[in-house]
Parts: sequence; structure tokens; C-alpha cells
Amino acid sequence: MPVSLLDRLFAAGLLIDTGVDGLYGRSGKFEEVITRFEALIDRFGGADNPEAIRFPPGMNRAHFEGSGYMKSFPQLAGTVHSFCGCELDHVSLLQCLEEGKDWTGQQQATDIVLTPAACYPLYPTIAKRGALKEGGGLFDLQSYCFRHEPSKEPTRMQLFRMREYVRMGTPSEVMAFRQDWMERGTKLMEEVGLPFEIDVANDPFFGRAGRMYKNNQRSQNLKFELLIPVNADAGPTACMSFNYHQDHFGKTWGLATADGETAHTACVGFGLERIALALFKHHGLETEDWPEHVRRALWG
Amino acid sequence: MPVSLLDRLFAAGLLIDTGVDGLYGRSGKFEEVITRFEALIDRFGGADNPEAIRFPPGMNRAHFEGSGYMKSFPQLAGTVHSFCGCELDHVSLLQCLEEGKDWTGQQQATDIVLTPAACYPLYPTIAKRGALKEGGGLFDLQSYCFRHEPSKEPTRMQLFRMREYVRMGTPSEVMAFRQDWMERGTKLMEEVGLPFEIDVANDPFFGRAGRMYKNNQRSQNLKFELLIPVNADAGPTACMSFNYHQDHFGKTWGLATADGETAHTACVGFGLERIALALFKHHGLETEDWPEHVRRALWG
Repeated sequence: MPVSLLDRLFAAGLLIDTGVDGLYGRSGKFEEVITRFEALIDRFGGADNPEAIRFPPGMNRAHFEGSGYMKSFPQLAGTVHSFCGCELDHVSLLQCLEEGKDWTGQQQATDIVLTPAACYPLYPTIAKRGALKEGGGLFDLQSYCFRHEPSKEPTRMQLFRMREYVRMGTPSEVMAFRQDWMERGTKLMEEVGLPFEIDVANDPFFGRAGRMYKNNQRSQNLKFELLIPVNADAGPTACMSFNYHQDHFGKTWGLATADGETAHTACVGFGLERIALALFKHHGLETEDWPEHVRRALWG
Repeated sequence: MPVSLLDRLFAAGLLIDTGVDGLYGRSGKFEEVITRFEALIDRFGGADNPEAIRFPPGMNRAHFEGSGYMKSFPQLAGTVHSFCGCELDHVSLLQCLEEGKDWTGQQQATDIVLTPAACYPLYPTIAKRGALKEGGGLFDLQSYCFRHEPSKEPTRMQLFRMREYVRMGTPSEVMAFRQDWMERGTKLMEEVGLPFEIDVANDPFFGRAGRMYKNNQRSQNLKFELLIPVNADAGPTACMSFNYHQDHFGKTWGLATADGETAHTACVGFGLERIALALFKHHGLETEDWPEHVRRALWG
């Protein structure tokens, strides 16, 4: 029986089984690849002098609700719930646990939702500052993100890290940013010796009504993905995405340009675990044996 | 009216308000301090050659249940819930959202719980490997952790990072490890010019029954904390802890030494945000102005 990519990663100790599909520990070596790849991203993006902000892996539920995420991707979101009862409630909770019954029914939603994409907490934060400066804004983000899609496909994790640059400004400013990054993404992946193609794409909008959004997103070229073959058992994996949101977040959060127009936004995202997996797939499970030019690009 | 520490951190841009108490964005400068402090931890702990593992900020719910956390700290835990309904359910969810009603009641618990302390996912993972080698095990961990305790006290965040070393082995091995780290912790905090004291402590066990655990933990010297004055409005802040679990996790997970005895465990934890806040409090909000010896310890 052929051994799956996931099992080979477990056997090599790069990923660590936790008993839940899509939820894995990472070895020190795996983490080092992500650290080095992020330094390479900095080399491509740092000269633009973005404002770095790091949000934790959860966001304000009110902001999450305002974003419209539950309309488009309800199946992927993760709300955080806590026990808010008294000592008597605690006794019955423990009894449920002991008897192997469901004890989670009494958990109550907190003010926190797991971050679905690194940039979601950013828009309301920047809107609160008032209008953008002349020339717009540029931000550098990274966080763990959650998507509830349990899978044995290692490129589809439930908890994974996304690095992002987000541009806010006029339509031409944000379109130029996206175009730049499609070219930089190409150069970046060439430096680390990964095969790829860039193609138009769509997000996994929920339900029948979602089909219209998918078609609309594609016909307007709002989303492109940089795809790398990672797992022979699956299609190529989206390792970067280049997204033009038009005025969606600008309208939602009241983001304005210096001229008082509704700001447009765009983002470029790196799926850090996916890129690490692509590197291990194409260059081998031992980083010491990777081609010299790849090692130089990552370790300098 | 005196300005609170939290407001000063917001004004300086080091922490970023998200609208939820205890949930903050971090500036690039704040993150740099954490990165540099972690490198200092490596200098003290790296020579022991620990096995580095990085778990994501959520863990297997079955492991969480097995850990006994809900017995001791039910009020702090965060379970992750998702929408599992059909398109019709989705319509009523969106209607709730639109009308400003609670839409979270239909969310169902997933297999994932937010990690309450960086070492919780480790014990079942290592137990699965079989008995420890001669000399036991030593592990290096870091992850975002969640504790549901909304507060305007910036040293008490709901999502924060904990760095840990965990030792597994015989009672004498793990006690020696803890003793070593109490001495290293002392040297480490001296190097970065922070005032501190080390004192016996207890965890915040829930309810009246919890009092017994607190007293027991104190009388047996199972937990020590390294306390630093950070916020004049509050008591000193536990920035490190030194914990001897006896055979609690060993028994719970069937962890065995090479001799087949139940393994004992101990851990040393660093509250990374708390330490960063202590550094900003004592040395000022501008890292460029920190004392020369502190800058040398952190930036080398």
C-alpha cells in the first residue's frame, strides 16, 4: 500500500500526530523552514516599509460578525466558548465528563472568534484611526488562522499560519500593489526552486447562493492563486493568493482615503505551512540535502 | 485622572485595542522584544539540547478532557465551536445575526480546545512514543494560550504566548531541572535589569473544593513564581513559573521512565507578553533608550 504524504511527514517527525485530522505539532526543523521563509518574504517586502502588526489567533466577535464571514463561509468559522456557571453547574459538567456524555452544550460563546484570515482584525483597527494618509496604507501581518475543515490532506490544516501584506488606498494604488506581488511571488518561488502556476481562483463560498459569488469573483479576476503541486493524491495547492477586495472592506468598516473616498483594499497571502510542505516535497525531507541555491536563498 | 498602564501602551502603539479586554494587537517593536527575549532564553536553555516542538494554539479535545483541566480550571478554558448545519439552518443563523439576536446557540463543539498552557498537548504526544530513554526527556515549547479572564490589566491577557521547557524522568531528575531553572531564571532577569522575587505560589483552582488544592500545592512547594512589579495598580506579576507536577501527568498519560516507573514531570514557563511588559515598564517605552547592558543582553 502506498504511504501517504501525511504518514511520511509523521514518520520523518516533521509533523506530529495529535489524533485530530488537520491539527499537528511541528518539529524544530519544520519551524526553522518557516522562520527562514518568512525572512525571505521580508527581503521582498520589507523595503516598502510596511507597518508590522501581529494579532493573536482570535479576534473580536463583533468585528467578525461585521465582516460578513458567517454569510460567506459559516462552515469554516470557529467561535470560542467558555464555562460561565456556578459550582453546582460545575458538578454536573464533571458528571457528564465522567460518564462520557457531551459536556459542551452548556459552554457559552465568549467575545472571541478564531481568526479566519490574518487580515480580518486589521480593517476595523485601521478604520478607527480615521482616514488614511496620502498614499494609503501598507501593513505586514502574520497569525495562526482557523478553518474547520478536518482532512488527512496535510496541506489543509485546521490551524495554520498565514503571512499577509495588506494595501489600502485608491483602486489604482491597491491594483498596482497586487500586480507587484504577483511578479514578486513569481521571483520568490523561483529563488527557492519550486514549480508553480498562477491562476484565477475563487473562495469556497457556502451553499447554492455561494455559486453566484464564486462566479462573480472569477469573472472579475478578484482572486488569483499561486499553485504548487505538493501532494500527488490531490490537485495543486494554493500557496499564495492575490486578492482585490474592491471597496468591500472599505464600505464595511468606513475606511476612507485622504481624499475622503471609500478606500479599496487588496492583500497578498502566504500559506506558510503549505509552502514549507512544498519545500519538503520538492527538495526532500532533510533540509541539509536541499539544493545549494535553495539553501542560499533561505539561509543566506 | 491618572492614565492606566494599558492606556499608555495603547498611546505608545505597543499594544493595539481590539475592543475586547485582554485581546490586543502587538506592534512590530513589541514583537521584536519578544523575539529577542526568546533568543536570550535559548542562550540559557539551548545547550541542554531540548527537543523543540511547536503545537498550534488549539489541542485535541480528548486530550484536554483527559488532562483534568475542566475539573480544576473550568472557568478559564475555551472550546472551539462551529456551524454544522444545512442551508436552511444557515438562513436562520443569518436572520439572527441581522436582528442582533444570539446566533451562537447552534454552534457545535469541534474536536479542538484552545491550548490552556503550552505543555498540555505534549504529555499525550510523548506517552504515545513509549517509555522515555535513559536520562528522561527534555522539551522546548512555545504557543499562544487562551484563558478566559477578560481584564483591563494588561498583564492578564486572554490570548498570550507561553514559552516552556518540560522535563520528564525520575523525581530527582525533574527536581534538579526545576532547581537549575530557578537559578537560571534569576541570572536571566538580572541580565535584563528587572527587579524580582521568587515565591511559592498556587494555581487559580475553581470553587470551594479548589481551596484544598491551593493549600496542598503551597504546602508541598509544588509551584514557585518569579514575580516582577509591572503595574502599580496591581500586585507583582508572575513572569515565570517553576512547577513540579509529581506523577500527575505521568499517571494520567501512562508516561514511563526507562526503568518502567511512572515518570515525574516538571516545567518552567515564561509569560512572554508579561516579560515584554515588564521590560517596557522598567526601561521605558522606547527600546532605543534602554540601558546599554540590557540592550546588549537582548540584541547582542
